[in-house]
Amino acid sequence: MASVRIREAEEGDCGHILRLIRELAEYEKLSDQVKISEEALRADGFGENPSYRCLVAEVFSAPGEPQGQGIGSKIIQKVAQVALDQGCSQFRLAVLDWNHRAMALYKALGAQDMTETEGWHAFRFEGEAMRKLAGK
Amino acid sequence: MASVRIREAEEGDCGHILRLIRELAEYEKLSDQVKISEEALRADGFGENPSYRCLVAEVFSAPGEPQGQGIGSKIIQKVAQVALDQGCSQFRLAVLDWNHRAMALYKALGAQDMTETEGWHAFRFEGEAMRKLAGK
Repeated sequence: MASVRIREAEEGDCGHILRLIRELAEYEKLSDQVKISEEALRADGFGENPSYRCLVAEVFSAPGEPQGQGIGSKIIQKVAQVALDQGCSQFRLAVLDWNHRAMALYKALGAQDMTETEGWHAFRFEGEAMRKLAGK
Repeated sequence: MASVRIREAEEGDCGHILRLIRELAEYEKLSDQVKISEEALRADGFGENPSYRCLVAEVFSAPGEPQGQGIGSKIIQKVAQVALDQGCSQFRLAVLDWNHRAMALYKALGAQDMTETEGWHAFRFEGEAMRKLAGK
């Protein structure tokens, strides 16, 4: 059976990370929102005071072996470990309401849909609205 | 007329910040979710590699002068400036669906309700679910 290794991302992964960001955005029908470059991913994640951390899953499988080894669950388990190690009391994920498979997975793993149960909405300021607010 | 000054929070503000967190949570009917202490606010925000930044509004008014000087808008404007200075392409706020006044303000300032227009839901892992996932 294929095996999966979850590890911290390295700067050399940024090309692959950008590709996965684009594939996810395509699946989410939000490709026009991807404006990040590989250079920005490198600078933001691997300089001083990085603004994000990233885990990657490496899958080792023989040709013809089935993919899909519960990678999503394994990554979320690792995120929970990192969060507890950092002293976090919770962590959050954002998911689109039509992505029933992802929602079912998160619920099965013990997450609560805060939008459904408490009514939380996410508001985004960007582009022209952000510059106008900032007076720039 | 009263005047408002927006500035970066200092460690000595943490007592006031915790009081405001509690008052907001009470308004949101979510007081049971406030588990942070003043000590944790100090450690998380004012040590090495702080995990949050905070702006505070100081209001200077004579006795009897009306309060409510557009403080919300002024804080959000400052957040937009900080975000642009940091190279951010957007910033987000979370708001409860029955808080029509806040929603109207954010929309008037140019924000988009991502939950309404794109269907984003927020999922939260915490407590026992998080520890179980982490195997702890």
